[in-house]
Amino acid sequence: MTDLSPLSELASPPFATRHIGPDADARSRMLEAVGFGSIADLVAVAVPESIRAEDPLALPAAASESEAIGELRALAARNSVLTSMIGLGYHDTITPAVIRRNLLENPGWYTAYTPYQPEISQGRLEALLNFQTVVSDLTGLDVAGASLLDEATAVAEAMTLARRAGKAASDVFVVDADALPQTKAVLRTRAEPLGIELVESDLSGELPECFGVLVQYPGASGRLRDVRGVVAAARERGALVVAAADLLALTLLASPGELGADIAVGSTQRFGVPLGFGGPHAAYMAVREGLQRQMPGRLVGVSQDADGRPAYRLALQTREQHIRREKATSNICTAQVLLAVIAGMYAVYHGPEGLRRIAQRVHRHAVVLAEALRHGGVKVVHDAFFDTVLARVPGRAAQVVAAARDNGVNLRLVDADHVGVSCDEKTELLHLEQVLAAFEVNGAVLADLDAATHDALPAELLRAGDYLTHPVFHSHRSETAMLRYLRRLQDRDIALDKSMIPLGSCTMKLNATTEMEPITWPEFAGLHPYAPEDQAAGFIELIEGLEGWLAEVTGYDAVSIQPNAGSQGEFAGLLAIRAYHRDRGEGERDVCLIPSSAHGTNAASAVMAGMKVVVVACDDNGNVDLGDLSAKIEKHRGRLSAIMVTYPSTHGVYEETITQICEMVHGAGGQVYVDGANLNALVGLAKLGEFGADVSHLNLHKTFCIPHGGGGPGVGPVAVRAHLAAYLPGHPLREGTAVGPVSAAPYGSAGILPISWAYVRMMGGEGLKAATEQAILSANYLARRLAPHYPVLYTGRGGLVAHECIIDLRQITKETGVTVDDVAKRLIDYGFHAPTMSFPVAGTLMIEPTESEDLAELDRFCDAMIAIREEIAKVASGDYDKADNPLRNAPHTADSVVADEWAHPYSRTEAAYPVPSLREAKYWSPVRRIDQAYGDRNLVCSCPPLAAYED
Amino acid sequence: MTDLSPLSELASPPFATRHIGPDADARSRMLEAVGFGSIADLVAVAVPESIRAEDPLALPAAASESEAIGELRALAARNSVLTSMIGLGYHDTITPAVIRRNLLENPGWYTAYTPYQPEISQGRLEALLNFQTVVSDLTGLDVAGASLLDEATAVAEAMTLARRAGKAASDVFVVDADALPQTKAVLRTRAEPLGIELVESDLSGELPECFGVLVQYPGASGRLRDVRGVVAAARERGALVVAAADLLALTLLASPGELGADIAVGSTQRFGVPLGFGGPHAAYMAVREGLQRQMPGRLVGVSQDADGRPAYRLALQTREQHIRREKATSNICTAQVLLAVIAGMYAVYHGPEGLRRIAQRVHRHAVVLAEALRHGGVKVVHDAFFDTVLARVPGRAAQVVAAARDNGVNLRLVDADHVGVSCDEKTELLHLEQVLAAFEVNGAVLADLDAATHDALPAELLRAGDYLTHPVFHSHRSETAMLRYLRRLQDRDIALDKSMIPLGSCTMKLNATTEMEPITWPEFAGLHPYAPEDQAAGFIELIEGLEGWLAEVTGYDAVSIQPNAGSQGEFAGLLAIRAYHRDRGEGERDVCLIPSSAHGTNAASAVMAGMKVVVVACDDNGNVDLGDLSAKIEKHRGRLSAIMVTYPSTHGVYEETITQICEMVHGAGGQVYVDGANLNALVGLAKLGEFGADVSHLNLHKTFCIPHGGGGPGVGPVAVRAHLAAYLPGHPLREGTAVGPVSAAPYGSAGILPISWAYVRMMGGEGLKAATEQAILSANYLARRLAPHYPVLYTGRGGLVAHECIIDLRQITKETGVTVDDVAKRLIDYGFHAPTMSFPVAGTLMIEPTESEDLAELDRFCDAMIAIREEIAKVASGDYDKADNPLRNAPHTADSVVADEWAHPYSRTEAAYPVPSLREAKYWSPVRRIDQAYGDRNLVCSCPPLAAYED
Repeated sequence: MTDLSPLSELASPPFATRHIGPDADARSRMLEAVGFGSIADLVAVAVPESIRAEDPLALPAAASESEAIGELRALAARNSVLTSMIGLGYHDTITPAVIRRNLLENPGWYTAYTPYQPEISQGRLEALLNFQTVVSDLTGLDVAGASLLDEATAVAEAMTLARRAGKAASDVFVVDADALPQTKAVLRTRAEPLGIELVESDLSGELPECFGVLVQYPGASGRLRDVRGVVAAARERGALVVAAADLLALTLLASPGELGADIAVGSTQRFGVPLGFGGPHAAYMAVREGLQRQMPGRLVGVSQDADGRPAYRLALQTREQHIRREKATSNICTAQVLLAVIAGMYAVYHGPEGLRRIAQRVHRHAVVLAEALRHGGVKVVHDAFFDTVLARVPGRAAQVVAAARDNGVNLRLVDADHVGVSCDEKTELLHLEQVLAAFEVNGAVLADLDAATHDALPAELLRAGDYLTHPVFHSHRSETAMLRYLRRLQDRDIALDKSMIPLGSCTMKLNATTEMEPITWPEFAGLHPYAPEDQAAGFIELIEGLEGWLAEVTGYDAVSIQPNAGSQGEFAGLLAIRAYHRDRGEGERDVCLIPSSAHGTNAASAVMAGMKVVVVACDDNGNVDLGDLSAKIEKHRGRLSAIMVTYPSTHGVYEETITQICEMVHGAGGQVYVDGANLNALVGLAKLGEFGADVSHLNLHKTFCIPHGGGGPGVGPVAVRAHLAAYLPGHPLREGTAVGPVSAAPYGSAGILPISWAYVRMMGGEGLKAATEQAILSANYLARRLAPHYPVLYTGRGGLVAHECIIDLRQITKETGVTVDDVAKRLIDYGFHAPTMSFPVAGTLMIEPTESEDLAELDRFCDAMIAIREEIAKVASGDYDKADNPLRNAPHTADSVVADEWAHPYSRTEAAYPVPSLREAKYWSPVRRIDQAYGDRNLVCSCPPLAAYED
Repeated sequence: MTDLSPLSELASPPFATRHIGPDADARSRMLEAVGFGSIADLVAVAVPESIRAEDPLALPAAASESEAIGELRALAARNSVLTSMIGLGYHDTITPAVIRRNLLENPGWYTAYTPYQPEISQGRLEALLNFQTVVSDLTGLDVAGASLLDEATAVAEAMTLARRAGKAASDVFVVDADALPQTKAVLRTRAEPLGIELVESDLSGELPECFGVLVQYPGASGRLRDVRGVVAAARERGALVVAAADLLALTLLASPGELGADIAVGSTQRFGVPLGFGGPHAAYMAVREGLQRQMPGRLVGVSQDADGRPAYRLALQTREQHIRREKATSNICTAQVLLAVIAGMYAVYHGPEGLRRIAQRVHRHAVVLAEALRHGGVKVVHDAFFDTVLARVPGRAAQVVAAARDNGVNLRLVDADHVGVSCDEKTELLHLEQVLAAFEVNGAVLADLDAATHDALPAELLRAGDYLTHPVFHSHRSETAMLRYLRRLQDRDIALDKSMIPLGSCTMKLNATTEMEPITWPEFAGLHPYAPEDQAAGFIELIEGLEGWLAEVTGYDAVSIQPNAGSQGEFAGLLAIRAYHRDRGEGERDVCLIPSSAHGTNAASAVMAGMKVVVVACDDNGNVDLGDLSAKIEKHRGRLSAIMVTYPSTHGVYEETITQICEMVHGAGGQVYVDGANLNALVGLAKLGEFGADVSHLNLHKTFCIPHGGGGPGVGPVAVRAHLAAYLPGHPLREGTAVGPVSAAPYGSAGILPISWAYVRMMGGEGLKAATEQAILSANYLARRLAPHYPVLYTGRGGLVAHECIIDLRQITKETGVTVDDVAKRLIDYGFHAPTMSFPVAGTLMIEPTESEDLAELDRFCDAMIAIREEIAKVASGDYDKADNPLRNAPHTADSVVADEWAHPYSRTEAAYPVPSLREAKYWSPVRRIDQAYGDRNLVCSCPPLAAYED
């Protein structure tokens, strides 16, 4: 009985030690390599004194994983999941369990990055092509995109598309009076800065002059009507018709394309995606031939690889904001890939006959409900409807809704006299009985009525013809087949479960399981966004808690998590600045200064917010040129609205001049917008809101651990100082606010906020700070290891970088012909996703290791990069042929290196196993290098016939 | 408004359509190929009239997946998960979330089969080797096996091992009085039929003559003592010492090996495996050098592949029951692989320092609890203990336990005067306060006591020296690293998520997600097996419901789900027969007839149940030779206890004579045991209990969808007719029963019973019948497609097989030299797991497609087999070299076909891509063919040094 080991010395290692890759020993070795004795010394040099925060973060002490799960269970228990029959674009649905477990809950899918490297993204690209095919087939339109953020913003994007593409000179956009209320609200937010006039109309009378018309199909009230007349009238005026259509209804109804619409948009949520208190869900957009080059967001297309075999990749990328900046068609730079993939797989699993049966069943429940109401003396307003019954109960609506709630069902309170009841995939006769009881109507007659009542779909709107005829929608009906299809696609891709994804500016850190688990709990996943707030008490506490923590972390005074992507956060932040100036009588301030190094989205967002973009030059070190800034401020002084800068800069360095920049802009009456993309270099060390910025958006899918999902969902909260707090986005279902909503749902993508909540809860202030410090150390370690082989482009004080570094290949390319593309594709042969290519500087690679990669993986990556440098040297020396070498031919597929004839001047081993460790674990690219141009010249954006794959 | 589509016509397709692979259209095509117009026609010919059940199964109508989940949630809600401090070998633990999600909840791990094909099992074999290394290191013994069923049966196995291996002539086995009560009870069940006399002793006095001694270390009472004296005394008597040791305690304590024990056994549950109301958990066994060939169960060893590189596989398989039959060392034929893998990964994730810290923390909580009790005037019985404090409260024990329960904590009621309190990984000071309050002792002093109280581990029992020094226990500390390690191992293996596993007799059907989801819900996973039954009300209702359904399905009158493997079910069934004869005064009946075609386990179980095995011959058609049966019955008439037959037979046919066999045996006073291994060919069509059998065991991991988990867990309920119901296994913590328990926990592997419950609930009677019919059709479809290429060995009426078929390669081998091994390994190159090799007939392959494989997959498999037959033909014709051909060299690794030099007379394409579809999705074997003999000659059963992998 010797030892005495008090409990205080036996505490479990905090979660931070699991989140952060290198342990103390590795950290020492890394510090030694970078030349510092401690991480504090490194930070003292790397991070400018002027921005350093003094105090530790005031956050609750870190919880263990078990404790955090316990607290989340307690929060979840405070939500009440009633049967939701509210409708309004959100419908309960059954996520097939095989899809939930093997896709939504699988890091092989959810940790993947956006498919910018198409060779290692063939699995999710095929899944997205399925999604596009579903949308294109059901909408009857030619080209569908790979998802948008939500239905309301998709309508707004369709509005601006119509304005760009239409022939009418008008600034008027006609909005269906029966459109979803959240759509109308978001349209108002989006139209005003662009000078678009919204005219609401029931579309029964004469159509005014306009550039576009929105029809909701079926209407928010449930009403179903033939819009061919509206289409004809729009045609006459040179206006485009946007149909916001319910994809499930379209399995039974004439498609928007058939009715003549130019653009269809909507939500795919009810294709198996949980309600999640409002999101994330994938919205869709499809357009008729001719409009595809105007489409916002991503588009997956079919091209071919170096062997001429079909291969998928993103098409028409030149449309996108990161290329076109202020001339972009939209500021959208993410999609809802994970959710789109779920919706697509739901269609794959059910097939056309299954979807049709689900739709019929939904419709049929609505039909018998309506008939039972009529039998009970309740007036049903519309004769034709799909899933929603609008009941007229003069003066009694609130009472009926309350009674239904007591029966466990949420209905829609339309006004004092009307109640809306929406049926969905989960509706059973039992629910109808509960609803009828609330109306004080006898439910016992339902079965009899079912046998005698006709459907409520007008004959002229019935759908004719087949859809989803591609074999993929007919081959995966058993759970086993579905499981294997999901696994086969997953196995084609590189996600974080396979290896490091060293993307600059994207912060591909750990998405911990404990953070992920709660999002599929029914108490979080099952809430309708317009459920009464008392039913979401736990969720709202979580959200408000998270907003408070984010404010503390950033040094701002108020945060809104509503924006469901960084781009939307930017837009919201700029709207706040705009409203602030206007309220102060300085509405003429409309110039937004943007450094040339900025993310393209910044410029696109500024344009959306009604601002004029003025570019500020950068100096040779990549920093804002203060002289040029000064000149531009002078030139636009009276009209200066804001400057948008990224900090640390997109060049991956802490600019010493940031506080000076803030002062200069403030001095001219402008506001400072700091893009929070690189927040992972600041948390716990510096606070944006304290060193001079007025507003920022954050990216919860970067710094706060929401996984990238293969290209979405993202969450982009907007954070502001107190003087801007009144201008945060509002919502029509909440109290009046100065600025309208930017997202469809009051809390945006609420369903995934438990991820970031858990991250902050488990890291605590110390853990968050340690993560930032490690991220800086890891980036500098990489920079030191690679510097002898590749020039590191920008550094700050002490030759240090921030949390990412840029290596410069331009001279190498000039000397050897080996391009960044070649290096990126060759990394695939080594089992890695490439770093960010040619951003922010063409001809460079930007590498961000994040704190989550351990030293072994960092070294494996460095070893690969160094080995590649040696390969480049062989090209330079002539040991490798300039045109036929392992770099130029990368990636190598298994079947290309197994080929019976090997015609290359380098060996098969050099092609496939350039380093011996690959023999232990080798990722084989499923395709060879993809020809981007071919795909854009020959645009195919839905599932190609199987014949395309035959040799 | 035209259609009328009543809801009755719109019902969702039942779950059975997801479980069963082929759809109606495919079924028609298959029937056509087999030559029948309907499935009823096929069944009418295939299944003998004499056994056909008339009535449909009386089961609840099939629930949908959503409904079943809803009902399971309601059952779960009726369980109360209190803090468990009961101890007794079951301790709460934290399953790291990354392991839960990516291993326990991942079909890539849980659907894998037993690693009999080692080339496609390298991932789980490495994981098991980790497990063995953990056990071997911590027990200080030389060789550890790959897990046993539970601690109690492991002790029983150790007892028989000691008897086999020891030198003492005695029949006495001395049992530590402080052993776990369930261990004592199982020992009694196991000892009696074997004529072993158990002598309980507190081990303080003289050791009697004996062949072995069991010491519990630490004791069930918590007591910790030095057993070196007992060891020395045992040595003198030539007896072996079995230490039942707590693996977590061993991180701090001198190991059994160091203390001189010959065998160590125990549970690894507290290494991250959920309590699950008693199981499944992995027990362990380790032995000193010299005893390994006597060890029961599986042993993973290191060997080398055809390229001389290290590769893992099962070692010393010749010890096992399927080879040695009645001479086997044990009837164990499964392990608890999935749970052993979890326990091993828990050690990988925590490493030695983490495990030690957890153990210290557990100990420390016990220490301060004991001191606080003493301070409060409560006597603590033992001074030296690890995690369990035995408190003496004369006359008050029940009151204290009840008070603690009111505070949310379950304690152990030892007797009227004693309470046991066990601390575990989840214990916090808060829990100690709750416990102290129940003792009416002040808990406020805990912190002070902590600072002042010494540990309670005797100095002479402290552990010295390092353990878990292998790099694998030091390289995966971050969640990212752990995730990738799990994924890398998973990717090496073929499980059902990749392709069909056509193993005869193993029924590798779908393990549906909805069936699997509930097992990790805390309400099922968190219950201690000895929690008061009112806290498990929902679980017990589920179990009793399942037992009732299984009785209905099999036509028996009573079912016990206690046996946690088929072998244990067999043993329990034979014990019932034995007890029945004895109760009728016919104790002399001890002969068990077993046909030569039987599973080897049958014979081994009969021996364990004290029976003498008499083999009955089979005729040329593989059926029981009725003449020989008659002769054997005559010969042993007075001593005839039972016959054990498998139905349908292990040859995959419905023997027409089964009812006659039953009558013959019954006529001689014997009982009929039907092995339920092939129940998947009977469910819904015929009932074992109605066509003449008296007792059967079922395999829930075959017919009832519990996944194979890479080689366990299994569940083997025993089902009996009414006259045997009184002889089902009992349990010491339940009311007295005629036969003792066969498993440690009252409800065996309760934690996974929700899987089978959900399966039956979602299939309903019709679905179960349809599954059986499809399984028969699929087997016959395969037989028809393969028959032109390979002889089908046994068929029944109409040339039909049952649910599996045997193809005969003996003639082919004779003519060409190509063996079943060659075909099996070549199938890997085609992406398939091999069928069962050389069982029940050497030189054949037994194929069971199950109902879950769809037609496309069945055809893909047939195409592969036919292509292989063409390859064999090339060997025969001389087109392929006899010694150097794609069959003999299979499987081909990627790096073997990418080799710069290709020395084989066939092409690389023929090696790697014999059919074009492999270019779309290719599984690469991680190793070439493994040399089994090399590994047995050079036994290495723990993680080899990394140097072994260097070229």
